[in-house]
Amino acid sequence: MTDVRNPHVHHIAELSDDEIFAAHESGKLSIRTARPLKTQRDLSLCYTPGVARVCTAIAENPALASRFTGVGHTVAIISDGTAVLGLGDIGPRAALPVMEGKAQLFDRFAGLNAVPIVLDETDTDRLVDVIKAIAPSFGAINLEDISAPRCFEVERRLIEELDMPVMHDDQHGTAVVILAALTNACRLLDRAMADLRVVISGAGAAGVACQKILSDAGVTDIVMLDSRGVIHEDRSNLSAVKQELAESTNPRSVNGGVVEAFRGADTFIGLSAGSIPEEALQVMADRPILFSLANPDPEIDPDLAYRYGAVVATGRSDLPNQINNVLAFPGIFHGALAAGATEITPAMKVAASRAIAKVAEEHLDIEHIVPSPLDPAVAPAVSKAVAAAWAAATS
Amino acid sequence: MTDVRNPHVHHIAELSDDEIFAAHESGKLSIRTARPLKTQRDLSLCYTPGVARVCTAIAENPALASRFTGVGHTVAIISDGTAVLGLGDIGPRAALPVMEGKAQLFDRFAGLNAVPIVLDETDTDRLVDVIKAIAPSFGAINLEDISAPRCFEVERRLIEELDMPVMHDDQHGTAVVILAALTNACRLLDRAMADLRVVISGAGAAGVACQKILSDAGVTDIVMLDSRGVIHEDRSNLSAVKQELAESTNPRSVNGGVVEAFRGADTFIGLSAGSIPEEALQVMADRPILFSLANPDPEIDPDLAYRYGAVVATGRSDLPNQINNVLAFPGIFHGALAAGATEITPAMKVAASRAIAKVAEEHLDIEHIVPSPLDPAVAPAVSKAVAAAWAAATS
Repeated sequence: MTDVRNPHVHHIAELSDDEIFAAHESGKLSIRTARPLKTQRDLSLCYTPGVARVCTAIAENPALASRFTGVGHTVAIISDGTAVLGLGDIGPRAALPVMEGKAQLFDRFAGLNAVPIVLDETDTDRLVDVIKAIAPSFGAINLEDISAPRCFEVERRLIEELDMPVMHDDQHGTAVVILAALTNACRLLDRAMADLRVVISGAGAAGVACQKILSDAGVTDIVMLDSRGVIHEDRSNLSAVKQELAESTNPRSVNGGVVEAFRGADTFIGLSAGSIPEEALQVMADRPILFSLANPDPEIDPDLAYRYGAVVATGRSDLPNQINNVLAFPGIFHGALAAGATEITPAMKVAASRAIAKVAEEHLDIEHIVPSPLDPAVAPAVSKAVAAAWAAATS
Repeated sequence: MTDVRNPHVHHIAELSDDEIFAAHESGKLSIRTARPLKTQRDLSLCYTPGVARVCTAIAENPALASRFTGVGHTVAIISDGTAVLGLGDIGPRAALPVMEGKAQLFDRFAGLNAVPIVLDETDTDRLVDVIKAIAPSFGAINLEDISAPRCFEVERRLIEELDMPVMHDDQHGTAVVILAALTNACRLLDRAMADLRVVISGAGAAGVACQKILSDAGVTDIVMLDSRGVIHEDRSNLSAVKQELAESTNPRSVNGGVVEAFRGADTFIGLSAGSIPEEALQVMADRPILFSLANPDPEIDPDLAYRYGAVVATGRSDLPNQINNVLAFPGIFHGALAAGATEITPAMKVAASRAIAKVAEEHLDIEHIVPSPLDPAVAPAVSKAVAAAWAAATS
């Protein structure tokens, strides 16, 4: 059926607890003065009395803050610790290592200052209030690991009420990379985005954002699955978010469970923790695209995926085609800040996807539909594309 | 009358706007990964999947956060921008350069990570709520440039409601250094703290804290002045804070204005913006101690101060005996964090004062009653003393 065999698996030697904890000893970030403070004169320039001159200038012209403070290149990584990795609601302090790790990545790939902020607060209204109150400290806000459905309203309201880039990365970072991967998979298989029949499993943060960006990119036939089956207008007790999905997806009015959803589909995107049975793969169209992104256990067993799929991707670093949002967020925030953008628009996200896909083009094959997370060319390309998309929309 | 002449004034060449703004270009802080992220394996250790192991461990035992995240050496510098330097209520963004400068000093003198947080919120209750919500991100909280009287309640409630060191530096940092300076002035002049007659001008953040720490150190005769004169129990319309001052100070029931307050006093501590007339100096006791700390213009004209005073100190870096809270806060927070303290007690503040005074002892003379702000011996000595004071109180 397919010419794809189980490809070479790049195993990473098992990580030991000793190694992991050693890498976290004393935390993973270092906050230093950006220039030496050696003399009394240095102190007088950076602190009193010199600093008063800069404060006064910013009070008179707030736009100067982006030049004479760090806000022009500082991102807050904000979480309430309710949906951390696959660990769920572990609270703010336990979430901190993830936020520190993400701040390391912002530095490593985009040279941005990033500040981990974990919140002892989970009420939607109060989360919005707290984040708005601290917002002047930063140039942009990366929301992280906030559980659905609160994450949708928190992000929506902050985008409306703040004049700075705000993005919930679990939604959009992942979606941007999926679109890039799907673009290149289509290119390899000579398929058109508009003709795809896509099943998305998972209607949480990533699933909803994935549906949106694929629609923005021209995919029309999307069936969404949650733990109760296909999201369909006839279903009762749908949440507001799922009601909206029911109305905007499923044009063929598919009803039922996993097998019904998969029948005739040529693309699967797994963003849940469920397991897909072989029976479902058997009823798909020929040579499907299979993205099983649950971590550490993909929804489709890799052996099955490589047997049935024409192109296979996972979230795992030890398999080819790792869909990892580190390909997206450093460049997206860098580009938005560089452009002075006051929000991150759908067009900027699509531009980021195209830039990621384009970096992979040079070595494009079924094991390389996205660049390596370590490829240093990605973030600058994404930044440039995102800034250009903002400029194009506002010029 | 005195043997003190106007001492050599160490003029710093005027700071030019060009130099000041150049020192602030792109902000003054750099947030970097504390260890290199070169390989896929590095990513796997610091971020997914390795980080999940650390998150789980902290969720099970929250005390591990101080070892495996940065909270054990991270201080938030939090301001609402309402009382910034002498500039007043200039708002959060315009206050940011001061907080960045302070973060540079935390790095330079104590090697701590410090995060500037400026708040778009001034209501007392909501300030407390916001700061409590973000508190798990940090190991300690330095409140800064929050106007009186809100600063008193905000600090008091946070100390009560959070299990981490919280200190409003405008109050206590300044007070700690004043006590150190006064201790050494007494030593030079062979006077006893308990016998001093002290006038404090200014009943704002610093004045109130100065009164408290001097009382804790054994000074009994303190007269407080505000813009309406001596704070006295017979005065009407006293705020709650001033009512408390009226009850706990002024044992000789002095009433009236500046001259009445100064009559017979041997120590003046200026923490206001007012100007003290020569007439007041003429009615003081012989050879008074004169600390005029208003910046940039001391309450007592320096020429007059050196003519009347036995020991003179100001807040200025171009005059001897600069009373600068940078001598206190880096070591206080470092010591409190190192000791795992859950608050900063009065005893820890007095211990910090003694440590600062002791560092100056070696070269003690009337132009060197406190160490230079650049003296690298100060913060380690303060840290050690503060940690020891916490340990002594809790062992």
